[in-house]
Amino acid sequence: MRRGKTFVVSGPSGVGKSTVLQALLDRRKDIYFSVSATTRQPRAGEIDGVHYHFLDVDTFQQWIADDQFLEYAEYVGNFYGTPKRFVDAAMDEGRDVILDIEVQGAIQVAAKRPGTVRIFIAPPSWAELERRLIGRKTDSIEKIQKRLVRAKVEFQTAHTYEYFVINDTVEEAVRELEAIMTAEHCKPQERMEIISGK
Amino acid sequence: MRRGKTFVVSGPSGVGKSTVLQALLDRRKDIYFSVSATTRQPRAGEIDGVHYHFLDVDTFQQWIADDQFLEYAEYVGNFYGTPKRFVDAAMDEGRDVILDIEVQGAIQVAAKRPGTVRIFIAPPSWAELERRLIGRKTDSIEKIQKRLVRAKVEFQTAHTYEYFVINDTVEEAVRELEAIMTAEHCKPQERMEIISGK
Repeated sequence: MRRGKTFVVSGPSGVGKSTVLQALLDRRKDIYFSVSATTRQPRAGEIDGVHYHFLDVDTFQQWIADDQFLEYAEYVGNFYGTPKRFVDAAMDEGRDVILDIEVQGAIQVAAKRPGTVRIFIAPPSWAELERRLIGRKTDSIEKIQKRLVRAKVEFQTAHTYEYFVINDTVEEAVRELEAIMTAEHCKPQERMEIISGK
Repeated sequence: MRRGKTFVVSGPSGVGKSTVLQALLDRRKDIYFSVSATTRQPRAGEIDGVHYHFLDVDTFQQWIADDQFLEYAEYVGNFYGTPKRFVDAAMDEGRDVILDIEVQGAIQVAAKRPGTVRIFIAPPSWAELERRLIGRKTDSIEKIQKRLVRAKVEFQTAHTYEYFVINDTVEEAVRELEAIMTAEHCKPQERMEIISGK
């Protein structure tokens, strides 16, 4: 049986990454979507092991000490991390894994796991990203401008990503994501048992 | 408009490459399937410009002198070559191009055109390739054994190919080919206009 592969998906705030990933996961029940660990308190309706693995700070630090994370970061006073064990278990079952993490975390994962494929969800244009951020009606103009600058900074790092999926329409973005996942399983290193000539 | 890309497809005799490519071209009318030039005589029913571009030897040699071929070879006393002009015209129209050529020709094309993607159609196993060659009932046992040895020799070169598509079923092989073509258009170098940040 083929082993699963890990795909890191990043993208700026407002690009529609969550919508695209949800549409992909609705189509492809075989994909394991990684659940992060966090030290922040559960919000109403959040279920441990589904939305997050909720850990106390001591446990989180113990997991760091035990090298249990593919990547971790601090954000507004809380820790967030990607536990290795669930990712590895899914890959061993032959399932592809998607990690929804930002550029800094993606660099950590790629360093630990050289076979990881990084995909950046990009807007059709910066003007379109701005339109989408305004359309959400959740942020002030100042906050939107900050998000746009942050997106451009991320983008400077993201040119090292293996793939860019343009989220022009959700359907097309999902089609490209699926194509990338299929194509990556056609790489020579994934098919050594054929190439070595049994 | 995005520019088309060129995909070289190779594979051993008996692997079912022609069937797979025909199924792909039936689905995807936008793909340009490169028509080779040859100095051999047309057979009954063969149409100039459809099955081959039929050239006399002088013209073929003139095309070589004018650097009109992406690759060319001699086979049983006749010349065969891939004319550049039709490939370039299709790519300029935004169409992807498929070249059905063997490993030696693929090396020539990749050297002339670094952006070319090479895909090797492989059998699920050598035993299955042998079964398919026997099943065709066109070759003697000796000829089949020669084809198998030739396939294994080709395979030694083919490990440098970017992708391996296993022709287990035609549907799955076509799905993988289409995925590879889609994924290759998501590479950063294909999306510079987004990355450079207009």
